[in-house]
Amino acid sequence: MPKIVDHDQRRLELVDATWRIIARLGMEGATMREIAEEAGFANGALKPYFPTKDLLLTSAFGHVFNRTNQRIAAMTSGLAGIAALRAFCAEVLPLDEDRVNEARIVIPFWQKALNDPDMAALHSESMNQWHTTITAHAGAARAAGEISTPIPDAAVADHLLNMMLGAQIVAALSPDEHFSQDLSGQLENYLALLAA
Amino acid sequence: MPKIVDHDQRRLELVDATWRIIARLGMEGATMREIAEEAGFANGALKPYFPTKDLLLTSAFGHVFNRTNQRIAAMTSGLAGIAALRAFCAEVLPLDEDRVNEARIVIPFWQKALNDPDMAALHSESMNQWHTTITAHAGAARAAGEISTPIPDAAVADHLLNMMLGAQIVAALSPDEHFSQDLSGQLENYLALLAA
Repeated sequence: MPKIVDHDQRRLELVDATWRIIARLGMEGATMREIAEEAGFANGALKPYFPTKDLLLTSAFGHVFNRTNQRIAAMTSGLAGIAALRAFCAEVLPLDEDRVNEARIVIPFWQKALNDPDMAALHSESMNQWHTTITAHAGAARAAGEISTPIPDAAVADHLLNMMLGAQIVAALSPDEHFSQDLSGQLENYLALLAA
Repeated sequence: MPKIVDHDQRRLELVDATWRIIARLGMEGATMREIAEEAGFANGALKPYFPTKDLLLTSAFGHVFNRTNQRIAAMTSGLAGIAALRAFCAEVLPLDEDRVNEARIVIPFWQKALNDPDMAALHSESMNQWHTTITAHAGAARAAGEISTPIPDAAVADHLLNMMLGAQIVAALSPDEHFSQDLSGQLENYLALLAA
């Protein structure tokens, strides 16, 4: 009797192995052979799941994005206004080793997306989704009197989204340099500007 | 008599050709052959100047950074405080086609820097330099009564630097999406927060 294979499970194992290898060796070091070995697959066994490295990378990015969203949902549950905004951003900011590794996936993904319309669309879709959520939290914070700045809620979302993009580069490339405050401190300072 | 060659000039031509090709074809498309052709060099003639593509990329990034600094120096000359801060950031933000092309160099550079300590050091050095300058402009703005926020000058520099990093990604990947305001508008909104 043939062995029953859970293909979704195997795909997930491959995606996990992919981002571990990219975080460790960089995009160029992450060969299909290295990824297969990390996942405990025979070398040729990847192809049926992911015919190309680009497809694997897109899946790895999608996986990181979904996992971030699960963390956000868990951490913002029951919160509103500034508390929800703070919890949302704290989950996106690369504040621990796992999330710094995620930043190390996201940068190669952006680089690929420069010349790959599907990856660029996945990036845009993710950012649109976050912009909408952050704008809503900012609106609730304003309604509760927690935000008194004259700039619109969507402009607050612009700033936070942009800062969260920049934070991936800071965390991946120079976590301990050229900033007077760590990323949490930067977030708190921004929230202080909104309250002023 | 042998032809007299201005080696610095030729190096500059190669660096210019490199960033045009990366902007157009992406990192993977930017082969040494393509770059030589763009610069009007015979295929083998690059090697004496830049033995590897990584060295060319590092030089191209350094060149973009120097050129940006020249523009900043020209545009902030004679300005102080918020006016200097605004002019500085406006030169770094990718607000025209040339600077969007520069953003398309910077992203592959970051991706390479993830696994190249020399490139990472060049990135850090550049960011330290900007952080120092922005902090000084913020200090002058505060002294002139243009900034009244309680967050420190260096924290303002943290935000602006982080936003300028994020802006490169926005401009290169999704210039017309998921932000309610263009990058100039985002800068003006941030300056409005400082004045409040």
